[in-house]
Amino acid sequence: MNDETTAATALSEPPSRLMRFEAAIGSPRQTLKADRRLCVGPPGNVFVFGGVLFGSAVAALEDHLQRPVIWSTIQFLGPLRPGEVLELNVEVPGPGRTISQARVVGRVDDREIFLASAALGVRDEPLDHAWDRAPEVPPPEACETAKLWPHGQEPGTLLETLEMRIAPGAFAEAEPTGRLADSGRVVFWMRARQDLPMDVSVLALVADFTPYALSKALGGGLGGVSLDNTLRVVRRVETDWILCDARIQGIRSGFAHGDIRLFARTGELMAIGGQSMNAWPPRPR
Amino acid sequence: MNDETTAATALSEPPSRLMRFEAAIGSPRQTLKADRRLCVGPPGNVFVFGGVLFGSAVAALEDHLQRPVIWSTIQFLGPLRPGEVLELNVEVPGPGRTISQARVVGRVDDREIFLASAALGVRDEPLDHAWDRAPEVPPPEACETAKLWPHGQEPGTLLETLEMRIAPGAFAEAEPTGRLADSGRVVFWMRARQDLPMDVSVLALVADFTPYALSKALGGGLGGVSLDNTLRVVRRVETDWILCDARIQGIRSGFAHGDIRLFARTGELMAIGGQSMNAWPPRPR
Repeated sequence: MNDETTAATALSEPPSRLMRFEAAIGSPRQTLKADRRLCVGPPGNVFVFGGVLFGSAVAALEDHLQRPVIWSTIQFLGPLRPGEVLELNVEVPGPGRTISQARVVGRVDDREIFLASAALGVRDEPLDHAWDRAPEVPPPEACETAKLWPHGQEPGTLLETLEMRIAPGAFAEAEPTGRLADSGRVVFWMRARQDLPMDVSVLALVADFTPYALSKALGGGLGGVSLDNTLRVVRRVETDWILCDARIQGIRSGFAHGDIRLFARTGELMAIGGQSMNAWPPRPR
Repeated sequence: MNDETTAATALSEPPSRLMRFEAAIGSPRQTLKADRRLCVGPPGNVFVFGGVLFGSAVAALEDHLQRPVIWSTIQFLGPLRPGEVLELNVEVPGPGRTISQARVVGRVDDREIFLASAALGVRDEPLDHAWDRAPEVPPPEACETAKLWPHGQEPGTLLETLEMRIAPGAFAEAEPTGRLADSGRVVFWMRARQDLPMDVSVLALVADFTPYALSKALGGGLGGVSLDNTLRVVRRVETDWILCDARIQGIRSGFAHGDIRLFARTGELMAIGGQSMNAWPPRPR
């Protein structure tokens, strides 16, 4: 597509991963150049999307430890701007035989961008069950493409590479109502327009769309800025579309809390995300 | 009640808090002596309950920063045993005007016991709404006292100070079935037998009872050991009993994921917890 895509084939991790590290795979220290295609925001004020930071954190953990993430929480500390080089340093305070307790700090020079903590591992236990079921919605082919962000985005940025579809009816109308919604729940399909094999970084990226439900819950408007994001991984399924079931639980004192469940097209529960948001009120009509 | 209770009145924080710090209130460095009454476990093998560690972490953050916790996640790294002295060190990598981004590390000498990250603050925003509603259950007076742990606990430990009640019927029977339950959900009331004013440490303590739902979901048996715990605070309500709505979402490769909602007796949503657990399979019948 462009020079950067070509260059990626020389790197050590799968070239189809959205965020491409620059050090050798498996190193505890990685670097990530903040490409504009990883950013969101209006023209002239873009920053790397929180879900991309989270995705890079969990990918760096898995690359280094060669174990799957069980859960991870990221604390967002500051923006990463295009052109900046993020340094990710993995530490392993609990190097267990079956579970690695780890963390990764993301920095630009001395400025902390995030701290993520996580446990990674797998145990030889046969129980395999999900009590949470996928909501019944029409397949993505029968749903309408939704606007991912109510306001204009700088051209060439992240949201151009993602597609969201919402079933016609209850959730199809994006016009702000100015009233709190009866339900804090939104169900939608999401996919990357480019081919992105299922990977923990994709789950982390998509889990960061919980603020979309906030916008709906508040009756339209800008929604929220994530303070954190927690991801709990059940399984990875190769799926063209991810079914997202997001809910806002409550809002008070300017902060909202919500969660999101990610299912494969075939209905398997893949992961659960949760986050607290600095919530901006609906714009006056 | 005993010498330690008397001594507590000389300390700086409310003597009714379950865990009592030893340094002056507001210090970024606190110490906590691991009293047996903060422990769980069978005779001869007790350790401080994860919810107590989490409670001490968020209390230390609030005491030092004098702002309310919005969310916090704790990563459990190792056990704290009776008689050990836990040192808690608060750091504030993001000292914002309205939001403090903070963390607290718990150590015994050089051994890390936990790392908790958090955001604290309050904004002057009038929106105050919860989309999640309390489940309809009989009041605690009409419910039966449940066994908090299926196996014997060392006398004088934490669970003697807590009471759980479960509505007669679906959830009253604690006998293991050996089969996965149809639902991963359990609703129960919980209170401290002693007077504990509502405080972020109480919310953190009670949120750590999500593994109780795992035991039920697995058809009985030991349940799980928390890897982490995330708490998202909506509001604090003085309430004699806390209504807990806990769910297990899924289990795979030896790890289970669940969440819990905490409501006041009067129905207000107070907080949402979530955690991943190292899940032990049901014991053979």
